Amino acid sequence: MKALLIVADGMADRPIKELGWKTPLEAARKPSIDYMADAGICGILDPISPGVPAGSDTATLSLLGYDPLKYYSGRGALEALGWGLKVEKGDVCFRCNFATVDESLTVIDRRAGRISNDDASKLTEDLKKVKSPHRSTKFLFQNTLQHRAALVLRGPNLSTAVSSSDPGKVGEKVSEIKPLNGSPEASFTAKILNDLMQKFHKVLKSHKVNMERVKHGLPPANMILCRGAGRIPEIKPLHEIYRIKAACVAVTSLIRGVCKVAGMQLLNVEGATGTPQTDYLAKAKTAVQALNENDFVLLHVKATDVASHDGDFQQKIEIIEKIDSMVSFILDHVNIDETYLALTADHTTSCATRNHEGDPVPLAIMGPYVRRDDVKEYGERSCAKGGLGRIRGINLMPILMNLIGKAEKFGA
Amino acid sequence: MKALLIVADGMADRPIKELGWKTPLEAARKPSIDYMADAGICGILDPISPGVPAGSDTATLSLLGYDPLKYYSGRGALEALGWGLKVEKGDVCFRCNFATVDESLTVIDRRAGRISNDDASKLTEDLKKVKSPHRSTKFLFQNTLQHRAALVLRGPNLSTAVSSSDPGKVGEKVSEIKPLNGSPEASFTAKILNDLMQKFHKVLKSHKVNMERVKHGLPPANMILCRGAGRIPEIKPLHEIYRIKAACVAVTSLIRGVCKVAGMQLLNVEGATGTPQTDYLAKAKTAVQALNENDFVLLHVKATDVASHDGDFQQKIEIIEKIDSMVSFILDHVNIDETYLALTADHTTSCATRNHEGDPVPLAIMGPYVRRDDVKEYGERSCAKGGLGRIRGINLMPILMNLIGKAEKFGA
Repeated sequence: MKALLIVADGMADRPIKELGWKTPLEAARKPSIDYMADAGICGILDPISPGVPAGSDTATLSLLGYDPLKYYSGRGALEALGWGLKVEKGDVCFRCNFATVDESLTVIDRRAGRISNDDASKLTEDLKKVKSPHRSTKFLFQNTLQHRAALVLRGPNLSTAVSSSDPGKVGEKVSEIKPLNGSPEASFTAKILNDLMQKFHKVLKSHKVNMERVKHGLPPANMILCRGAGRIPEIKPLHEIYRIKAACVAVTSLIRGVCKVAGMQLLNVEGATGTPQTDYLAKAKTAVQALNENDFVLLHVKATDVASHDGDFQQKIEIIEKIDSMVSFILDHVNIDETYLALTADHTTSCATRNHEGDPVPLAIMGPYVRRDDVKEYGERSCAKGGLGRIRGINLMPILMNLIGKAEKFGA
Repeated sequence: MKALLIVADGMADRPIKELGWKTPLEAARKPSIDYMADAGICGILDPISPGVPAGSDTATLSLLGYDPLKYYSGRGALEALGWGLKVEKGDVCFRCNFATVDESLTVIDRRAGRISNDDASKLTEDLKKVKSPHRSTKFLFQNTLQHRAALVLRGPNLSTAVSSSDPGKVGEKVSEIKPLNGSPEASFTAKILNDLMQKFHKVLKSHKVNMERVKHGLPPANMILCRGAGRIPEIKPLHEIYRIKAACVAVTSLIRGVCKVAGMQLLNVEGATGTPQTDYLAKAKTAVQALNENDFVLLHVKATDVASHDGDFQQKIEIIEKIDSMVSFILDHVNIDETYLALTADHTTSCATRNHEGDPVPLAIMGPYVRRDDVKEYGERSCAKGGLGRIRGINLMPILMNLIGKAEKFGA
């Protein structure tokens, strides 16, 4: 028995006036997804606990069975891992942006005009050569996609208890990084970071790539902003907990990082972009193939969340319909007698508020021996009437492992 | 966005034979309350956890989002606070009764014939002059309503681990207060209390007010019974947790005490009495007005619990119908596009057993963006089919804060 878990990022929503108070899921035409609900057992799920809005990192930890209240230790390390950086235990990691500032260090563009990978790579080459502000602290810096980058600090006496240098909006000055508690480690880390950011700024502001950018009317990437300090969570990998082989199909670095920490194989899919234009079918193919060699596969789609943060419920509906064709392909190509398929969202993202919200998400599980209920359609409200009732995110993995015969009995 | 939570004390019930096995909620005519269920999302809620009968104090802590298993520290301090006594951190407080005993200290009347406020005040004046049995321990004693009073012990080496002096029924002797654990603090506190009660008895038994009472055929208030030792719970106020302004409309001192601890503003309403004859509309008006200046308002009605403890299900139905007109007023006077309204009970009180019971209570939440379900009527059984499923008391506050945009995201 195998399990394939499909997670559509931020797919759940609240009722939308323009849709006659339906949610995008309720408004979309999605026969294959509805078939999963019809043939399966449904429920609603609180990623963290009722009413608590989840991030994608905490929610994915939870969906993989790890209590984020115990194990979450910030975004930075998960994202750096997801980008393929060799993060080690104890490293303190940050999510960074190439940004544009004026001479008074006021932020003009938090993404340096969504700088090209090419320009960012050239700048990064020289940032790597900067001498660390302290001989006991090493740093790794790596640009990832466009304006995004990761920074890893390595060495003794480091702390994650430091503030961000990203003011969060344009027109404000770059923030001084401050210790968030009274420990000498937090003060030390804040000092290192402030010094390093200054050194980076010095290299960037006179860099020839930026001279070229200004010449062509592009905003210079003359500052690095950093936020989301984090360490690798200390968790047991899935193969140790359940004795399974597990893989993930995901593009989003934060999700890949969580899966990496859980010991899952990270699969790459050509044409998968993490955007609404991603190659849904290519992802489905990879996931189906991965089931041959794995007990458990996580297939993550980012696009639903992107549309929600843009408040674009029409696009969200279109993306759900594309996910439906992805599900159709999966239903046609997996051995349904030996496979459990589950579909959920990692959290609710409201097209109205454009934010993550704490409302529960729908869940359907189909497969040979589920206690099929009488829910016929997949949606936030229909699934609430299902046989699974209302469960917590951390309950899902034990439920799936139980279905595929990988749950260990507790007691005699 | 704002939230108004209406809590009807002990409103939930069990099916009653004389009502054709309906509950009072199911038997009452309550179009406005049913409208809340119809327009909203419903569920059932376990104040503490399934099957555990809650007190009004633990249940209210829970409904405000504080886990009573972690934070509850006895009734005494909450009630004393609710009466307006200046309770300090560390004080050990008791709920007291003026009672009537005979010469062998056998209790004749636990409420001294529900002594008048006037007589109780006069007696209290002289009790306040009693010298404390130990120089390191100060005491405050205050009569509140009729036979009710509060006692506060202040000083070092005090403990809440002491038994009650109230035998709980007439015909039994006043109980000696005993330490409930082996600590020197518990023994010390028990000794102080026994000594103080003896001193109080000495003052009361020969007091001229009691001589007058006997002359008029009234039972003398010649003994103070004390119970419910408690300290102030160490909790963060709501404004620190959710960054909200919160107020409460409640008469019952125990509820007011909990709200005070939660940092809520305590509002006073002329004509609100905590009895079935309370001015329901005046309370509704105050609550609606309070929404102008607050993000969250708790409106508490005691009367349903009073009728239940009397086993008077007909009166309970009448009170529910009065609460319905209160809800009608609220629906007519709040801005429904910007307000979430929730209605629940703090616990089940059975008219048959006349006790608090551990059955779950119904809950309805209406407001602009709830996932309206197909529940049409508000009741213990109808709400169990609602979209909220079965939640815990401590889940309610995060759910409401999520709806009004005051929940903080956990993760990235």
